[in-house]
Amino acid sequence: MSVARMLTGDRPTGRLHLGHYVGSIANRVRLHQRYESFFIIADLHMLTTRNTREDIAAVSRNAREMVTDILAAGVDPARATFYLQSAIPEVGDLNTLLQNLVTVPRLERVPSLKDMARAAGKEEMPYGLLGYPVLQAADILCVKGQVVPVGKDNAAHVEVTREIARRFNHLYGEVFPVPETIAAETPSLVGTDGRRKMSKSLGNTISLSADAATVRRAVMGMYTDPNRVRADVPGTVEGNPVFAYHDVFNPDRAQVADLKERYRAGRVGDVEVKEQLAVALNRFLDPIRERRARIEADAGLVDQLIVDGTERTRAEVRRTLVEVRRAMGLTGAYQQVRRRAERARRAAGTRT
Amino acid sequence: MSVARMLTGDRPTGRLHLGHYVGSIANRVRLHQRYESFFIIADLHMLTTRNTREDIAAVSRNAREMVTDILAAGVDPARATFYLQSAIPEVGDLNTLLQNLVTVPRLERVPSLKDMARAAGKEEMPYGLLGYPVLQAADILCVKGQVVPVGKDNAAHVEVTREIARRFNHLYGEVFPVPETIAAETPSLVGTDGRRKMSKSLGNTISLSADAATVRRAVMGMYTDPNRVRADVPGTVEGNPVFAYHDVFNPDRAQVADLKERYRAGRVGDVEVKEQLAVALNRFLDPIRERRARIEADAGLVDQLIVDGTERTRAEVRRTLVEVRRAMGLTGAYQQVRRRAERARRAAGTRT
Repeated sequence: MSVARMLTGDRPTGRLHLGHYVGSIANRVRLHQRYESFFIIADLHMLTTRNTREDIAAVSRNAREMVTDILAAGVDPARATFYLQSAIPEVGDLNTLLQNLVTVPRLERVPSLKDMARAAGKEEMPYGLLGYPVLQAADILCVKGQVVPVGKDNAAHVEVTREIARRFNHLYGEVFPVPETIAAETPSLVGTDGRRKMSKSLGNTISLSADAATVRRAVMGMYTDPNRVRADVPGTVEGNPVFAYHDVFNPDRAQVADLKERYRAGRVGDVEVKEQLAVALNRFLDPIRERRARIEADAGLVDQLIVDGTERTRAEVRRTLVEVRRAMGLTGAYQQVRRRAERARRAAGTRT
Repeated sequence: MSVARMLTGDRPTGRLHLGHYVGSIANRVRLHQRYESFFIIADLHMLTTRNTREDIAAVSRNAREMVTDILAAGVDPARATFYLQSAIPEVGDLNTLLQNLVTVPRLERVPSLKDMARAAGKEEMPYGLLGYPVLQAADILCVKGQVVPVGKDNAAHVEVTREIARRFNHLYGEVFPVPETIAAETPSLVGTDGRRKMSKSLGNTISLSADAATVRRAVMGMYTDPNRVRADVPGTVEGNPVFAYHDVFNPDRAQVADLKERYRAGRVGDVEVKEQLAVALNRFLDPIRERRARIEADAGLVDQLIVDGTERTRAEVRRTLVEVRRAMGLTGAYQQVRRRAERARRAAGTRT
């Protein structure tokens, strides 16, 4: 039995942070060895909200940094195929062919799209943004992905892929596997402001590539319990981002339990809780930093991975498109025209 | 100075009728010699409302019949490039790249789309149907079309193309001409039922390929003035489809004026007016029939035209896509990754 295929990836919009790690990267590090893993660098998706020449000019640098971060986080380059979406024009072809298999009201029910439009400062929804889940279906189906790890936001997108795959198979015959989703354990991480999900545009992030001093500074500036004006005032652990981070990143459970107990009793200062968090976070990031240093020392490694992965994926996608066009009958339509022309030429040749 | 390019065409859904002739073909016959003319066989557009395997299986036959009808109507095969849209996958690539340059509310304001959804019996608008004008923009822009002859319905579509072209040029530099529309003189023809526009789905058509007896039968069955129960009752010429056809297809203006006068005065029977119309229509169709007979005698002519036109257009479209991807910076993005990988390989080679 062959190994199932997994598709995962991100828009190349900048360095990855702890929120990405918790929401998707940790999951991928865990999963990628079990599957034949494709990592998309989704620059065509980026174009749905950011499409100036400046945005596109940053793709190549962002792609390298993103792949570096993913490898540094623990993905084995020998077990993953990274590819640049826009370098595979057949994806656009498939996107166009899949567009008739889903309705506008169905896409309008996908909850994240309106948020994405708002976050990008678009007053009116770009047509391509409404079709984000269709392009994502093209990504998943063009490599016949069977599993897709998802955060909370994109589970609804993959549901659209599943519907499109079923609709295609029903109309044209079994071509696509209907992909399964794998949910991440911790779907999202609050930002250092303690208010909203960690997100680069909100300036509440800690990068996976931040150095120890930067991490410590970010932690010391974190929001905690606003009612706690002194260390001897009992504090609230629930909803306190410093403890949320301790829960996720500090493997010393006994220390975390002790800090929580003393915090609730008013027997520990915020500074100590934060100092311990900075230590834990830097311990968590240290192996990532070491791997990054090794990767960066190997000049061209990441770029070559992207080139090899893109060539490999393109060959795969081309095979899928041949199958898709054959199943739909589009190949046959043109072939019939060509055969009729050829037969007539041959018959004319025979007569003369 | 080079000749401007014209793009025009139809979905391959069946034989052409008098309504097509009046609404677009006559215009094309008149215009195609003045321009470098591309005639699209728009099967990807057909998929927005008809996308079963059966619909697609009919494309090759419908394409041949449609092109035969267009040539029979007077288009010079030496002056027109016919091509099958689905055989040029780069159109789908361009469609995907253009999707972010127009908004959903803008497309929702295009009046014909809701009618098309209703006519196709779609309860909910397919995403691809809402994007019909975007795919049309891809068609026009992929060959850098400069003029587009339009009927009443698709002038609004071409306006979307103009906006997309301007938006693209503004964001990425001047790549596309902003196409001009040329309106047909008689935008639509009422059907033989006298109630709605001539349309195959309403069964109120007269085909360009109908023989003389069929034309006569259709004319004799036409709706006229419902208040006129006898030939000596004065009749109404306005809104009477028999006279609408006389106006369009009967070049004997004196005869038409005489028939109208006698009709208004109650001095001519419906049968005579219809007989004269049948004669006029068959006279109009005779040269079309002769050309069709010559075309059909040349087996493979039409198929070969489609094959040659498709190959020629594909080469053209590929050139456009190279330019588009270069202008957007997408080519550069992948090139940068490849160059960095290559530089690193060369540097490593130098060190060892």
